[in-house]
Amino acid sequence: MMRLSPPSPERFIQAKQFEINFGGSEANVAVSLAHFGIGSTFVTCLPENDFGKAAEAHLQSNKVVTEQINFRGSRIGIYFLEHGVDHRSSRVLYDRADSAFENIDPTYFKWEEILDGASWFHWSGITPAISQSAADTCYDAIRTARKLGLRISGDINYRRNLWQYGKRANEIMPSLIAESDIIIGGLPDFENCMSVISPDFTDACKKIQQKYPSITKIVNSNRESIHASHNKISAMLWDKHNLLKSKEYELTHIVDRVGSGDALMAGLIYGWLSNWKDQETLEFAIAACVLKHTVPGDVNLVSVEEVGSLVKGVNVGKLLR
Amino acid sequence: MMRLSPPSPERFIQAKQFEINFGGSEANVAVSLAHFGIGSTFVTCLPENDFGKAAEAHLQSNKVVTEQINFRGSRIGIYFLEHGVDHRSSRVLYDRADSAFENIDPTYFKWEEILDGASWFHWSGITPAISQSAADTCYDAIRTARKLGLRISGDINYRRNLWQYGKRANEIMPSLIAESDIIIGGLPDFENCMSVISPDFTDACKKIQQKYPSITKIVNSNRESIHASHNKISAMLWDKHNLLKSKEYELTHIVDRVGSGDALMAGLIYGWLSNWKDQETLEFAIAACVLKHTVPGDVNLVSVEEVGSLVKGVNVGKLLR
Amino acid sequence: MMRLSPPSPERFIQAKQFEINFGGSEANVAVSLAHFGIGSTFVTCLPENDFGKAAEAHLQSNKVVTEQINFRGSRIGIYFLEHGVDHRSSRVLYDRADSAFENIDPTYFKWEEILDGASWFHWSGITPAISQSAADTCYDAIRTARKLGLRISGDINYRRNLWQYGKRANEIMPSLIAESDIIIGGLPDFENCMSVISPDFTDACKKIQQKYPSITKIVNSNRESIHASHNKISAMLWDKHNLLKSKEYELTHIVDRVGSGDALMAGLIYGWLSNWKDQETLEFAIAACVLKHTVPGDVNLVSVEEVGSLVKGVNVGKLLR
Amino acid sequence: MMRLSPPSPERFIQAKQFEINFGGSEANVAVSLAHFGIGSTFVTCLPENDFGKAAEAHLQSNKVVTEQINFRGSRIGIYFLEHGVDHRSSRVLYDRADSAFENIDPTYFKWEEILDGASWFHWSGITPAISQSAADTCYDAIRTARKLGLRISGDINYRRNLWQYGKRANEIMPSLIAESDIIIGGLPDFENCMSVISPDFTDACKKIQQKYPSITKIVNSNRESIHASHNKISAMLWDKHNLLKSKEYELTHIVDRVGSGDALMAGLIYGWLSNWKDQETLEFAIAACVLKHTVPGDVNLVSVEEVGSLVKGVNVGKLLR
Amino acid sequence: MMRLSPPSPERFIQAKQFEINFGGSEANVAVSLAHFGIGSTFVTCLPENDFGKAAEAHLQSNKVVTEQINFRGSRIGIYFLEHGVDHRSSRVLYDRADSAFENIDPTYFKWEEILDGASWFHWSGITPAISQSAADTCYDAIRTARKLGLRISGDINYRRNLWQYGKRANEIMPSLIAESDIIIGGLPDFENCMSVISPDFTDACKKIQQKYPSITKIVNSNRESIHASHNKISAMLWDKHNLLKSKEYELTHIVDRVGSGDALMAGLIYGWLSNWKDQETLEFAIAACVLKHTVPGDVNLVSVEEVGSLVKGVNVGKLLR
Amino acid sequence: MMRLSPPSPERFIQAKQFEINFGGSEANVAVSLAHFGIGSTFVTCLPENDFGKAAEAHLQSNKVVTEQINFRGSRIGIYFLEHGVDHRSSRVLYDRADSAFENIDPTYFKWEEILDGASWFHWSGITPAISQSAADTCYDAIRTARKLGLRISGDINYRRNLWQYGKRANEIMPSLIAESDIIIGGLPDFENCMSVISPDFTDACKKIQQKYPSITKIVNSNRESIHASHNKISAMLWDKHNLLKSKEYELTHIVDRVGSGDALMAGLIYGWLSNWKDQETLEFAIAACVLKHTVPGDVNLVSVEEVGSLVKGVNVGKLLR
Repeated sequence: MMRLSPPSPERFIQAKQFEINFGGSEANVAVSLAHFGIGSTFVTCLPENDFGKAAEAHLQSNKVVTEQINFRGSRIGIYFLEHGVDHRSSRVLYDRADSAFENIDPTYFKWEEILDGASWFHWSGITPAISQSAADTCYDAIRTARKLGLRISGDINYRRNLWQYGKRANEIMPSLIAESDIIIGGLPDFENCMSVISPDFTDACKKIQQKYPSITKIVNSNRESIHASHNKISAMLWDKHNLLKSKEYELTHIVDRVGSGDALMAGLIYGWLSNWKDQETLEFAIAACVLKHTVPGDVNLVSVEEVGSLVKGVNVGKLLR
Repeated sequence: MMRLSPPSPERFIQAKQFEINFGGSEANVAVSLAHFGIGSTFVTCLPENDFGKAAEAHLQSNKVVTEQINFRGSRIGIYFLEHGVDHRSSRVLYDRADSAFENIDPTYFKWEEILDGASWFHWSGITPAISQSAADTCYDAIRTARKLGLRISGDINYRRNLWQYGKRANEIMPSLIAESDIIIGGLPDFENCMSVISPDFTDACKKIQQKYPSITKIVNSNRESIHASHNKISAMLWDKHNLLKSKEYELTHIVDRVGSGDALMAGLIYGWLSNWKDQETLEFAIAACVLKHTVPGDVNLVSVEEVGSLVKGVNVGKLLR
Repeated sequence: MMRLSPPSPERFIQAKQFEINFGGSEANVAVSLAHFGIGSTFVTCLPENDFGKAAEAHLQSNKVVTEQINFRGSRIGIYFLEHGVDHRSSRVLYDRADSAFENIDPTYFKWEEILDGASWFHWSGITPAISQSAADTCYDAIRTARKLGLRISGDINYRRNLWQYGKRANEIMPSLIAESDIIIGGLPDFENCMSVISPDFTDACKKIQQKYPSITKIVNSNRESIHASHNKISAMLWDKHNLLKSKEYELTHIVDRVGSGDALMAGLIYGWLSNWKDQETLEFAIAACVLKHTVPGDVNLVSVEEVGSLVKGVNVGKLLR
Repeated sequence: MMRLSPPSPERFIQAKQFEINFGGSEANVAVSLAHFGIGSTFVTCLPENDFGKAAEAHLQSNKVVTEQINFRGSRIGIYFLEHGVDHRSSRVLYDRADSAFENIDPTYFKWEEILDGASWFHWSGITPAISQSAADTCYDAIRTARKLGLRISGDINYRRNLWQYGKRANEIMPSLIAESDIIIGGLPDFENCMSVISPDFTDACKKIQQKYPSITKIVNSNRESIHASHNKISAMLWDKHNLLKSKEYELTHIVDRVGSGDALMAGLIYGWLSNWKDQETLEFAIAACVLKHTVPGDVNLVSVEEVGSLVKGVNVGKLLR
Repeated sequence: MMRLSPPSPERFIQAKQFEINFGGSEANVAVSLAHFGIGSTFVTCLPENDFGKAAEAHLQSNKVVTEQINFRGSRIGIYFLEHGVDHRSSRVLYDRADSAFENIDPTYFKWEEILDGASWFHWSGITPAISQSAADTCYDAIRTARKLGLRISGDINYRRNLWQYGKRANEIMPSLIAESDIIIGGLPDFENCMSVISPDFTDACKKIQQKYPSITKIVNSNRESIHASHNKISAMLWDKHNLLKSKEYELTHIVDRVGSGDALMAGLIYGWLSNWKDQETLEFAIAACVLKHTVPGDVNLVSVEEVGSLVKGVNVGKLLR
Repeated sequence: MMRLSPPSPERFIQAKQFEINFGGSEANVAVSLAHFGIGSTFVTCLPENDFGKAAEAHLQSNKVVTEQINFRGSRIGIYFLEHGVDHRSSRVLYDRADSAFENIDPTYFKWEEILDGASWFHWSGITPAISQSAADTCYDAIRTARKLGLRISGDINYRRNLWQYGKRANEIMPSLIAESDIIIGGLPDFENCMSVISPDFTDACKKIQQKYPSITKIVNSNRESIHASHNKISAMLWDKHNLLKSKEYELTHIVDRVGSGDALMAGLIYGWLSNWKDQETLEFAIAACVLKHTVPGDVNLVSVEEVGSLVKGVNVGKLLR
């Protein structure tokens, strides 16, 4: 998607310019992984116009493989972001109806070929929320990935406003989740996308385990919002036996929180692809997520070394020269 | 519409920012007239969101009355403008499908009330090209205006790409034109919107006169494009008897030609509302059009005095202090 | 006034650009109310030049009625604002001598006509501080408003530097205050403009009540400045019987505190025009004031819904999408 | 003075930012000479505030000696510049009433000390037009300079709008001109400031010679304005015997013509201080003037080498690397 | 290289910001070809730091394959570009001593592998001018390319200032040229790099043919500089029998001429790779070169369709919508 | 040095522009003192190009005397600064190899003449770290200063990465320090530059006193980094008898910490030149250092009055008008 935002801290109503960025949940994960040195291919539909090409160039400049992108349709999805600050919240206005991505279709992709040689497939709950054909495309991909033995992660990412095409999340999401190994989600996600209702995360995880036996890890981030510029954040991981908790970070100067969940996801994938232990992976992922809050744009332009330094608490706040 | 353009002379593909402007053919005429001191009301549909409000604020800050704007729908039409320069042409990409304006409907407006007390109604051929309901709305307005005795001007403005809703211009436009007093158009407009085919402007005007007896003036601008930054421009006016020609201007440093036809139209309306003679009106209108090329944005922010100075050739190029 | 400020956090001495805004105490109140949906007319003098017109356009784009503005004189008042940050304070340099506003004159305005149909009149202590004729004009307006039965609010806003035309505030202000219903002020205001001296707000209010029986409400904000970017703020209201206190907010990322008192005033007027109770009104007003600190420029571009959310503590710091 | 201009080609009414520059006729000459390697001292009054200091810093960064500047008064003169383009003219709005410079006074300066060791004194007709005390100060300086044997140049620079303090130019200017060696001026300057009326430059020069025997050179530039971006320019010099003419340059992409007369003056002074012949000096001066049109701001940031290259026609339009 | 330039038309001495671009002769050719749809690999050395990565990202976003780039060394070559305008020339200051590219070494590259499967190799005379090891690397590449049967083009690009490492161009260039099929150059290139001296291009080409029998085409552009913003340009091509001449274009609003020779080269390569006739290829190449002058930055962001339209004279200066 | 930094909070890899500043440890001290009203001369080498001139203009506009600057060499040292924020640290990349300053040489300067009439000489440990000739030049200056009876201060400023020319700091620094009166440094400085090893500051100071009897004061700042935007800072001073401690400040909105040590140094010099007591001097210096964190760029653009207000806690965070 193309993201258009007035220079912070201007409001939409007073803006004379938009800053242009490109992003989207799965794309952000791919870029983040590419900056960690992991070869990443992003599969989507983009329109055959200058903005489709600009989105592709954004991905390429961030080292994501774009060979599988399908260029069709006439418009790119847009979202407008108004940066909040202090007690004024950030706001997003979507303008994605009839985008190339909404019109994505299972017939466009030969997943066996696309996934050939890959070791991991990641999807987000945004995709099946957009349209039936997007949901179908996502399901095809997941099923093929499973058949080919890839590890599969899904970020549930339930947003009530998105589900507009006549299906409820609970009708669509379970079959996608049932084929996944790892999910990110919290209690509202579980309720709305998996019909798992519980006031307690650990308890909910146990119920999910019974209902979705393929799932081996469940991760969630805990964000406490003091206000738009000041949050506390940590993450927790259910490994089928225990609930691991990460360090909590206090973010007092948030630059851009969009994409921070994707940064967390990328950190998890990086850790597990590196065969790190769960706790180590979780600490890396939350530190990546923390750093994302300091980078303008949707994507997390940080290196493994930078995340590692934050995990170890080395050089934090120093002037590195 | 919201207009988004990279800072000149950047291309879309390299843009990191868009400059935000608001415009649209009839809106531009209204703003121009307001800057000439003529009370102008703009009637349209805008979405009920921040960008609809920003468009309204743009009109208000330019002294256009916005009381009759209908706030409905969820998106504002967008067009992307890439400024050309020298041998590289300017380009426009439209993104207006499903905009509030496309979904405008005749039932939204009580034209007798809206037009009460007005002396002039202006419409452009962009509106009936957008959708059937927009064409119907436009027709309602014109018919009511005629009934109430307003003078009616129409800018034919034929653009092949716009007519996408299943009707050809020749099926829709004649009934709108038949109720108008004054039109702006050239040979391709006549052929495509009025089925009047002729290689000669004067001859075409004579044919139009026969077919559309209500029309009393036909105006056209002549633009010779040396390249994107360098044009020559003049206008001509058929007054049912003679073809009047304006002075020709050579524009060597074009800043922004979007809206220059609307500036011409506003100049004509101003002259005729002032009861000027046709030649005087034509010279004022082409000078207004010339000045529009120097003003960034869609609208012509110039005063009657400034246009008058150019007509008289006073102070051109001087440093006024 | 025209406000010129280097982009934050640059100092005057290093600035290469000024950002242009328009504001002024009463204008800010009018804009704020207009954004709350309250029809507001602003009465002033502006010069007959481009900057006078730009100030008018600013008001119009913010839905303030400008029909009563008197265009005379040759210069617009200017103030230069250097944004402070952290331990460096913000600074204002005034350049308003001989402005159109300073030369405002009682003979320019027919207050009976202007105030016809209005329900509220607001004035600020800045106006009588500028010149004798401004004080006289203000007094005329207040007296007429009282005669016509409007509610009258005054923001005392005592600033020692402003009173340069040979009168002390204590010679001018009492007659203006004596005709008002509601005032905003604190202990230094009371001492310098009303000759009411007391170390205690409640006690001072009681003395004011005796001296100025027309006054029904006295409001004051309490600001604790940790530094330029970090303040704590709350408000209190004397209702002739009790001292009501609002919630206190901690502002850790102040963007622009100019106009925050005007935002508070507008919040109070909105609440009372809505016939809310005093406590409800006070909470709404302080929340409006808090949000103003996040909006660049003098005026508070927030809606009733946004203020209401903050009062209720809903969605604070969330990413709204 | 502080110059505030919207980014070209924006109009005042649409500006959101001003670019800040500093300039003024005599200051511009001093800066230009300093960039030519000539030690230059600028004498003026500036206010004791941040903008007075910023003006001083501007001069210092351009190597002008500022030791003789008198810091008094409370405001710096401002002028607003709207850049014209193509058929739209540039405009200047002055806001200099009551500036530190207007209040300059002869008692502030000990000219014998200030001019000690100097070889040239330059003044412009702007100064005596501002106020009686400015005229008196200028006269003191010229008389002292003459006494000390300096060469004295004056740029007549007659502007009708400036003479507002009750004197006509013809009452003040003759005594200043009578003590000068070299003047820049054209027929309107001669008529309004010297009561010399003639339709012909050579004839006028002869009359001046008789009336003002101290004058040894009279220079004028000839500017033909096609429009704001396109001028032709040349200069001519009367040496008491012959009228020398410079090469004519065609300027098709004018960036900023403010200060181009000052650039010409500086070129003349440089040539004569270098003991060049008149024709050589004139060619250098007009080439300096031509280059000024390409430099944003009031001052001519070019070197002797660059001017020399243009005179010789070397490397014009080349990419120098 | 990293290119840093003040926003046009500012001078270095007044700049407060640099715009960042990346370019270099061969890289520009590669990018241009990639935008024409030709798979292009760029081989170079870049430093292992953020600016090396940024240069790589620039290439990737422009679809150039970067797999063969060697990351070594500590600094990226910089050049500073001051944009000229009108009679003020553009200037370049190089700061490339000890750059990663200067220290490039033949041992870093296995040319047989790199060139495997390629059909064309292009080099520029800048490379052998930088250092002995760069010259050696270039020679290795050319010899291998020849052995593998690739077509080889060289842009002679003689710049006196560059040859600083102790060798003259005439000692190095002949062996590189002798292995090439196609060269771009003019009389000074022939004299300084091939010891071919002649006052006439055709005659010089005949001499080159005898001395360098491998060369089948010699191309040169003819640029007439009216000034920095206004040039006339055309190209000519010697095909061993005749001198073909292209159309001449008049460029009156040059935005950025850096890289225009590289755009010409890319146009030639595209035409010949498409098996077009020489005249057709030449017209395409000069039109590509013309369009480059309108694109900010070093690289030519235009499509085959856009170049083709200019060749045909279709839509020049139109507003494309 | 020229400092190039992406607009905060952008990362290097995403930057499209650099903001240009000039600075360097000793230059920053000179500028700061000049803004305190102390005549300051800066002695260095700058290249003979536009950037050397721009650096000189920067100093001049800040009132530093530049007459002793030696213009030689071809490049200016550059450093690239990426502003950190929150948990992301700031980073500096140096590009100063072969700069004019690295090639500085003792033979360029006649220190007896340069220091004639001066009362204080300040040097920083950066200089001797750059090259042997820079160390020699620094030593010459110090020795001469001592001979002439100036007070001498040195900021040890040990940075491991800088010492690349074959000497260790411990081989060079002791002789420079031995001739100084006042030093700024902490435990790592003492160990690496003076071979004084101790875990305790007071104890280390005592050892230094024995080894370097000329030293009368040792100052160090204590910085606690919560993260890049949030530090706590204080300073301490060993006066040969006692360890004085300053107030601690909490900086929660750091704009630019580069040069804050130089601001501290300038505060110390100012206090001692004013013959203030040590505690008063220390409080002034730390307050100057605190304010530097709010000023973008390397230099501390604050006045004595502003620092004094912070020391007294007057008006902190107020809107000064």
